[in-house]
Amino acid sequence: MTDLDDIFTARGSVLIAGASINGSTADIAIDETGTIAAIGEDARRAIDADIVIDGSDRLAVPGLVNTHTHAAMTLLRGYADDMLLQEWLSQKIWPLEAHLTGDDVYAGTKLACLEMIKSGTVAFNDMYFFMDRAAAAVDDMGMRATLAYGFIDLGMEEKREAEIKATEALVDHIRSLNNPRIQAAVGPHSVYTVSPEGLSWCAEYAKEQGIGIHVHLSETEKEVTDCVAQFGKRPTYLLDEYGCLTPRTVAAHCCWLDEAECRLLGERGVSASHNPASNMKLAVNRAMPYHWLKQYGANVALGTDGCSSNNNLDIFEEMKFAALLQKFAWNSPTLLPAGEAVMMATAAGARALGIGPGTLTVGAPADIVLLDARAVCNTPLYNPDSNIVYACNGGAVMTVLCGGRVLMHERTVPGEEEIIQEAAAAARSLIERAKNSA
Amino acid sequence: MTDLDDIFTARGSVLIAGASINGSTADIAIDETGTIAAIGEDARRAIDADIVIDGSDRLAVPGLVNTHTHAAMTLLRGYADDMLLQEWLSQKIWPLEAHLTGDDVYAGTKLACLEMIKSGTVAFNDMYFFMDRAAAAVDDMGMRATLAYGFIDLGMEEKREAEIKATEALVDHIRSLNNPRIQAAVGPHSVYTVSPEGLSWCAEYAKEQGIGIHVHLSETEKEVTDCVAQFGKRPTYLLDEYGCLTPRTVAAHCCWLDEAECRLLGERGVSASHNPASNMKLAVNRAMPYHWLKQYGANVALGTDGCSSNNNLDIFEEMKFAALLQKFAWNSPTLLPAGEAVMMATAAGARALGIGPGTLTVGAPADIVLLDARAVCNTPLYNPDSNIVYACNGGAVMTVLCGGRVLMHERTVPGEEEIIQEAAAAARSLIERAKNSA
Repeated sequence: MTDLDDIFTARGSVLIAGASINGSTADIAIDETGTIAAIGEDARRAIDADIVIDGSDRLAVPGLVNTHTHAAMTLLRGYADDMLLQEWLSQKIWPLEAHLTGDDVYAGTKLACLEMIKSGTVAFNDMYFFMDRAAAAVDDMGMRATLAYGFIDLGMEEKREAEIKATEALVDHIRSLNNPRIQAAVGPHSVYTVSPEGLSWCAEYAKEQGIGIHVHLSETEKEVTDCVAQFGKRPTYLLDEYGCLTPRTVAAHCCWLDEAECRLLGERGVSASHNPASNMKLAVNRAMPYHWLKQYGANVALGTDGCSSNNNLDIFEEMKFAALLQKFAWNSPTLLPAGEAVMMATAAGARALGIGPGTLTVGAPADIVLLDARAVCNTPLYNPDSNIVYACNGGAVMTVLCGGRVLMHERTVPGEEEIIQEAAAAARSLIERAKNSA
Repeated sequence: MTDLDDIFTARGSVLIAGASINGSTADIAIDETGTIAAIGEDARRAIDADIVIDGSDRLAVPGLVNTHTHAAMTLLRGYADDMLLQEWLSQKIWPLEAHLTGDDVYAGTKLACLEMIKSGTVAFNDMYFFMDRAAAAVDDMGMRATLAYGFIDLGMEEKREAEIKATEALVDHIRSLNNPRIQAAVGPHSVYTVSPEGLSWCAEYAKEQGIGIHVHLSETEKEVTDCVAQFGKRPTYLLDEYGCLTPRTVAAHCCWLDEAECRLLGERGVSASHNPASNMKLAVNRAMPYHWLKQYGANVALGTDGCSSNNNLDIFEEMKFAALLQKFAWNSPTLLPAGEAVMMATAAGARALGIGPGTLTVGAPADIVLLDARAVCNTPLYNPDSNIVYACNGGAVMTVLCGGRVLMHERTVPGEEEIIQEAAAAARSLIERAKNSA
């Protein structure tokens, strides 16, 4: 087995020896390109491994995907809670965000990446600002991410021009990084913050650039009633009218959809990102109609939302919140069983971001998480999906590989203490600046 | 500082040096009786410490209390999920429980104790069977527990006589243990499983013995409608009629209470155990009316329920589920703020079980949890209650003391590997026996 010190610096092919996959013990071979080359009896012959990881007492599962984040908001974790949405935004979140710098976004996104790696997430779909600095953090941490600048024009042409420039600049910047793990998306914030002209530009630009769209959709009842009052139609139809619903669109929240809107999202091949913890904390008063979205073939994935409305990035916890909220809110103990929750966090998430099948199969990117099969939460282990969704949290994750590169091993992430110290310092400085300007 | 090897075996006074308590750094002195002798500047002079624990980078909080468990059901964790309540019970849970032995209950309760210690819980309120063996597990693990035999007569006199004998035997047995951390309670299961004669005997016996009552109350709508149909009154009034509502009663679930029932529980000084994860998973379709219980002065605490309907015993997770479910179900983002959730899990839990104030104060039992202040979930740390409830899980717990005895330090619990192995073996054997008899 490769030593802990070497495992993060060595590059090349990787053998995971004797892990438990879907109830059987098997070796996994990963080639130099970061692709799963073989699973099972052929694996040891398939590669001449540069790195060998002991898989005994480990459950191998696909890397988790977080399809809706505002990663740098880790710096606002716990700054304000238990408030009415509008007061929380206008009195607490926006005034603090006004003081955020690019350095803060770098430090906050790095903390978010550390947190996601420590809980088994390999890829995320992010919308915020100073996104070039978010990209630098993702690059440093070795994860996958789809990064969108949050486009908000509030119906003002001058602001729209600035948002267009910012969006184009980010897309150009990310292309220049030439990092296959980082891709850009266009981020029209929502129907209540972006004009029809803005939505239209976003859709056309995304099409022209061949990139995805990341948008908030029907999070609150007010969003729906205001949209109907202003435009005479519900938000899903407005997005569709301006071309924003595509197979590369991720629509976050989707709480207040009616059945016909779910059908349209299914027809357009949209991915819906379910954010149950955020929706509960902000009391949006309706759970995503998962049953309709599933029925009409929309791709339903999972997201945590930002750390000021959750307040963590643990997709294990989010799987449990999703499975339990759906049961409770729609009054059905059989809705969203454990296996479907795992699929939402893996295959559906990977599909939403276009990063492979999100499964442990030959030819797939080697995005692999090893869980401690001897942890209390995995004892006993009748049905791993149940343990993963209902009993474990991210603390059961021991090892994380993203594209064949080891990001965490035996719960150690290189540089984690510095990342935590720097984020804590950035948060202190942010509060200080906000105080001094008040 | 005392070495890890010695910290579990040494006995006597304990100094926790320089921990963060409510935002200040202070020493905590614990005397030989397991009581907090001093906090702050006097602490080092108050005792001649036999054990010294480094409190730097640690948040000290009161030990958590789980007020509703069926601890040995850890052996059924993940055995059956995502089913209708009646099918789940009749096809899965009861057939397996029929094969449970005293040895299984010992192994399963020990696993539960390990799980609770690892997530910062020092005391729990348990109802199950073979409770003498549960007591042995608690005794071995050094926790506090209130143990009740689940009294179920189903209206049959012969069965009632057997339940009375079993209850009396457990109370006698626990008294004979002479362990100040373990107390007995009477456990009338519910109004739908215990006859009025049974409820009446339980209430009188509890009064005579000076012990508490542990009962399920208004978990499902069916329980309420059936009770009204059979007895002409709602379950709370039936329990009250037969004397089961006392200041030493813990009523679990309390989902389907109306406002008048909440007022009565407040008047009787009853403790209500909120079990949000279980209620969501089983789709009981109504959240405990916390606002009424609070308004009328009932003592609202937290519980996980058993591991077949949750499926873990992490009170940190339960605090988050409680705070979020109340907001979502009652449509108020300001309901059950973080500070109240922490109180439910500490002071209210301790009051429910009569085990001191559940606070870090001089004269209180030294039930103390040290959290990692440098964990990702505690970064940044604007408001510790928020981090505890919304961001952390039990994995942030580093050290646990119960009555001054160190049960976990630096996440190590003595003997944990054997406990896990023995529980896994007990579960395998249980399944085997159930299969062979089928």
